[in-house]
Amino acid sequence: MRVFLKIEYDGTNYSGWQIQPNGNTVQAEIERALKALTGEEISVTASGRTDSGVHAAGQVAHFDTESAIPPERFAAALNAILPCDIKIIESKLAPDGFHARFSAKKKTYVYTMYESDFPRPLLSRFAAKVSYKLDVSAMQDGASHLLGEHDFSCFLATNSSVKDTVRTIYRAEVIKEGELIRLYICGNGFLYNMVRIIAGTLVKIGSGKILPEEMKKIIDGKERSAAGMTMPPEGLTLLSVDYE
Amino acid sequence: MRVFLKIEYDGTNYSGWQIQPNGNTVQAEIERALKALTGEEISVTASGRTDSGVHAAGQVAHFDTESAIPPERFAAALNAILPCDIKIIESKLAPDGFHARFSAKKKTYVYTMYESDFPRPLLSRFAAKVSYKLDVSAMQDGASHLLGEHDFSCFLATNSSVKDTVRTIYRAEVIKEGELIRLYICGNGFLYNMVRIIAGTLVKIGSGKILPEEMKKIIDGKERSAAGMTMPPEGLTLLSVDYE
Repeated sequence: MRVFLKIEYDGTNYSGWQIQPNGNTVQAEIERALKALTGEEISVTASGRTDSGVHAAGQVAHFDTESAIPPERFAAALNAILPCDIKIIESKLAPDGFHARFSAKKKTYVYTMYESDFPRPLLSRFAAKVSYKLDVSAMQDGASHLLGEHDFSCFLATNSSVKDTVRTIYRAEVIKEGELIRLYICGNGFLYNMVRIIAGTLVKIGSGKILPEEMKKIIDGKERSAAGMTMPPEGLTLLSVDYE
Repeated sequence: MRVFLKIEYDGTNYSGWQIQPNGNTVQAEIERALKALTGEEISVTASGRTDSGVHAAGQVAHFDTESAIPPERFAAALNAILPCDIKIIESKLAPDGFHARFSAKKKTYVYTMYESDFPRPLLSRFAAKVSYKLDVSAMQDGASHLLGEHDFSCFLATNSSVKDTVRTIYRAEVIKEGELIRLYICGNGFLYNMVRIIAGTLVKIGSGKILPEEMKKIIDGKERSAAGMTMPPEGLTLLSVDYE
């Protein structure tokens, strides 16, 4: 049977999702727990990788098993083995033909920032420090140009070799929540480092270095160098993955 | 001169505020940083201790120094030396006769909880897990009995030897904020473990074990055994200390 998993993790102490020769990863922890539970060598497939230090509130993954454990029971059974910073929110029988990566229709990320001259002890684990005062309404204006289908090669990490750089963005909202400034972004897919580069471009807008309208020119220009910096991983959380 | 400090810390990795023979403490880290900065052996006095694992968004402390460093500059200078989980939010010349502990008029704490059967990776650093479904409105009803001046010996940790157990509570509010349930409590002072025992008593009310009206009887009865459990430290944050 194929089992569906919804996973929450604090990525601070992991080298991302995907198994690496060096460094501990979320995938490795879950596969180790599955081995302990079932005795099987199980490979877990996620909706996509998350980078080193990136968090997830709702990563989705699947695995195939011969185990007689009822699929709903995997969550509690794995949680008893997994470390505190990785937990299974839900497990269930995957629908027919389900594939965590290929069946995914939409993903939603949140990128969280705060304004400060020094790292804030109560915020810095799940949010990135920005040393500028940010104009949230200008950032929202800039973000609105992301909506719709575009070639987003301007936000593609320079070391990526991906060919198809066209994606559709359904939601791009910048919201002030107390001391935090959050970018909620939902799309049919994201290029490598895309959300972190968009966040960096919005910081350029929010700090007044460029105007909100520049966002459209940056997208149309397709030049990585015109966009902002890649913001640090601790601010990024994969919120949810939507399927049919 | 006497310098006023406002301090934020993530208490996870500390044995509380006060210097201990074993275990690292927030006070020890700040005194070590002051020594490195000024060369003086400086003793720092806080508004009160916080226990092992308890956090602060606005702890207040003072120290006396012969240093020629302008008082406003201590924050940035100390932050360059302090670890990431302890930072000085503000430093300034203390008003005449100021004493961080004896001049304090009010303290505000927040106790944060979430409902779950397993520790949540994105919440568990700054909030306590409660395995019951909680009725927030019943908790608020119970909390309302805390307001005003009372003998709070029912909430006094059994190993405490304090004599005067009368305190005045100015605010006691239970609020649902997304997945979190928060108790905001402000008073002219708190007994040892008092906020954590109040939180435990509110959990008894919220989970339906006792009625909200029981809170009044528990206070009047002055018996520690009638109140709830001492909730874990990670849920507790000292928000602010008010002076004249």
